[in-house]
Amino acid sequence: MTAIQTLDALSSFLGQRLSRSKSDLDLHGRSESYFPLMPPDAVAYPETTQEVQRIVEICARDAVPVIGWGTGTSLEGHAQAPQGGISVDFSRMNRVLSIRPGDMDVTVQPGVTREQLNTELRATGLMFPVDPGANASLGGMAATRASGTTAVRYGTMRDNVLGLEVVLADGRVIRTGSRARKSSAGFDLTGLIVGSEGTLGLMTELTLRLHGIPEATSAGVCAFGSVEDAVNAVIDTVQMGLQVARIELVDAATARVFNGYADTSFPEAPHLMLEFHGSPASVAEDAERFGEIAADHGATGFDWSALEEDRRALWTMRHNAHYAVLAQHPGHRALVTDICVPVSRLAEAIVATRADIDETGLAGPILGHVGDGNFHAILLIDPDSPSDQDTAMALSHRMVERALDLGGTATGEHGIGMGKLGYMAREHGAGWEVMGDIKRALDPLNIMNPGKLVRQA
Amino acid sequence: MTAIQTLDALSSFLGQRLSRSKSDLDLHGRSESYFPLMPPDAVAYPETTQEVQRIVEICARDAVPVIGWGTGTSLEGHAQAPQGGISVDFSRMNRVLSIRPGDMDVTVQPGVTREQLNTELRATGLMFPVDPGANASLGGMAATRASGTTAVRYGTMRDNVLGLEVVLADGRVIRTGSRARKSSAGFDLTGLIVGSEGTLGLMTELTLRLHGIPEATSAGVCAFGSVEDAVNAVIDTVQMGLQVARIELVDAATARVFNGYADTSFPEAPHLMLEFHGSPASVAEDAERFGEIAADHGATGFDWSALEEDRRALWTMRHNAHYAVLAQHPGHRALVTDICVPVSRLAEAIVATRADIDETGLAGPILGHVGDGNFHAILLIDPDSPSDQDTAMALSHRMVERALDLGGTATGEHGIGMGKLGYMAREHGAGWEVMGDIKRALDPLNIMNPGKLVRQA
Repeated sequence: MTAIQTLDALSSFLGQRLSRSKSDLDLHGRSESYFPLMPPDAVAYPETTQEVQRIVEICARDAVPVIGWGTGTSLEGHAQAPQGGISVDFSRMNRVLSIRPGDMDVTVQPGVTREQLNTELRATGLMFPVDPGANASLGGMAATRASGTTAVRYGTMRDNVLGLEVVLADGRVIRTGSRARKSSAGFDLTGLIVGSEGTLGLMTELTLRLHGIPEATSAGVCAFGSVEDAVNAVIDTVQMGLQVARIELVDAATARVFNGYADTSFPEAPHLMLEFHGSPASVAEDAERFGEIAADHGATGFDWSALEEDRRALWTMRHNAHYAVLAQHPGHRALVTDICVPVSRLAEAIVATRADIDETGLAGPILGHVGDGNFHAILLIDPDSPSDQDTAMALSHRMVERALDLGGTATGEHGIGMGKLGYMAREHGAGWEVMGDIKRALDPLNIMNPGKLVRQA
Repeated sequence: MTAIQTLDALSSFLGQRLSRSKSDLDLHGRSESYFPLMPPDAVAYPETTQEVQRIVEICARDAVPVIGWGTGTSLEGHAQAPQGGISVDFSRMNRVLSIRPGDMDVTVQPGVTREQLNTELRATGLMFPVDPGANASLGGMAATRASGTTAVRYGTMRDNVLGLEVVLADGRVIRTGSRARKSSAGFDLTGLIVGSEGTLGLMTELTLRLHGIPEATSAGVCAFGSVEDAVNAVIDTVQMGLQVARIELVDAATARVFNGYADTSFPEAPHLMLEFHGSPASVAEDAERFGEIAADHGATGFDWSALEEDRRALWTMRHNAHYAVLAQHPGHRALVTDICVPVSRLAEAIVATRADIDETGLAGPILGHVGDGNFHAILLIDPDSPSDQDTAMALSHRMVERALDLGGTATGEHGIGMGKLGYMAREHGAGWEVMGDIKRALDPLNIMNPGKLVRQA
């Protein structure tokens, strides 16, 4: 429980922007996933870096936990407060500070969402391509090293954050990186903070790499006889140097969901959905070349279109997969898994996962960012059924164990949070101890998002 | 001076592979740049990770410095031994351990050079594109976060190292990363070690990302009326989403050097040299579109060629620039500078640098990887003239100060080593202290490459 003098010290300068209302505490204690409510003791709404710094300094005096909050869309309990403390909500730090088209970069406050940023960029011909699905805050996306459908072409948050301003646990404010595109000047502190889930400090500014909105785009979809055929087509596509902007796999169960949700008639088979970015000539050529590769692997019905409305329909369906699945199972909740394996092992991972899910009787469509070897199962749970939850958790556990057996990782893009702490020792071995060494060096009191990512004392 | 019991303990298991010959010590105490001889007390030639681990454990007992050695081609004194100790030469750990074409990755020992790797990859249709010019070892390239002409398309070592095996200062061996293409599982230890210049540990294995050898390549060169025009053409090219594989600027002084060295007749003006990778149709289209952009900026004589011999001649000239400059100044040495600025500030940085060099009377052609905002001056020094050296050092100093004034970095790709330690406080502020905190957490005895990168006690 946060000491009363800490709360008093915070409200003395935050005023109404330190909230202790039950609704606010509950909102900041919830998760989009299966975790029970874990509310903070108060929610702070800072407006400046200096206020964030002061919050951290005050919390440090009494070793009170400090937890960053963006939009609350993380999936492994990252933003909940299992040890109480202060939730630092960045919704009032939501300004785009500086757009530099000549350098193709932008500096934003952490509460800016990706859709907000792309709206503000519209006039420049530039875009920020990282797209995890949810309209997450950029600070949150950096904290969890988010990625999504376009990572195969544009990279993850690791590749698109050029620099940061960070408030550390002792109140020091550092600037990492520079505005140069590359640097060999010392440890890559930007890369250390990105993906650290708020356990090393709170980001108060981010400088992000932008990309040109492509002159032309083509997209297409086709069905395969098996997951193996689809994955082999992906491998050939990447090896031949075709620059896909997106390459998504949906399995037969997902195709069935699409047909039930929208007015489509996909065959109930594994599909690849692709997008190419470039000049009008290059996207046409890329799509045709992909069509040949797909045909070599027995694909049928490869249609591609450069028409924006067709593309939009395709990707709207892909993005709505989560909601489409839920719509067909009224009253259910979804546990969304996330593993990533070497692409050469992807087909066996998906086939084994499919068989494993089918054996339990749970509904669980599989879909994923197959260019990266990353996929999800959306496991449907009756919230009143403890056995459903146990079954889903056991499935998720077996998926992670399988990913690690195959040389992959416990999470491709959702992060560790509380949900995947149990796999860190196996995935990283002594490397997890090293993460703890770094954590203790920078946050000896363990006030920055305690209970997440690093080994718990 | 390394204690005799340390040397005895090392030679007890390394035998002849612990060398104390004067020629070996001198070789491992030299630098390609201007630093005086700083030899180690012995040179170890390990053949396995276990031997590296044992070397580090023995050195840790007596707090003896441990300095990694690849090919000795670093430019800021990284591999010299200012405090004595043991140089760990990786030339006997030079095996390509595993090539996985389906995953487009490879695992190598640190002593493998980039040319050796590409030779071994030839049959696979894959390549490792990072090319700093020198035929450096991949361990050394990772340690300094090297890049070069192709970084604008394929990224730097930061982007192309997927995972590492590292021996830490206390003898722990960790594996960072995984074979998955991306991961959100904890701190990015791979990214922390890449660029750490051997101050946190010694890499004993690297897993690297490979890329398909492009089906077609086009290349071209053209002259501009001014550096500003050339840089503005670069900015437009990148903003329009043209995917250049290389885009290099050589200034008028460099064009003059080329003409004197080879049988060419470049106008004495700034030139851009470009390369595009893709399909036959796309590289032709890219080259033509670039030609239009260049013409908009007043370029003359844009010739492009998809013929391999023409391309080879072009890039051979670019790669030989360093030697061409030296050949025209017999008896001179070169101090090669390295700064990187936001691309929008690149023209003014180059113009100011040119004027600054001309004022001193030193010869100093300028050339660089302008797609990244990174450039070098090759400053010619008479080794018998202390004033030449002072003048060159002062020029380099002003270049770095200017880069930092413009929001850039003290080094784009050469690293800090000993040569640029003096700029770390200004470039990183409190961030440099944080690097020291991390260093102390992982290497409390300061045995890993002491005297480099972090603040000296």
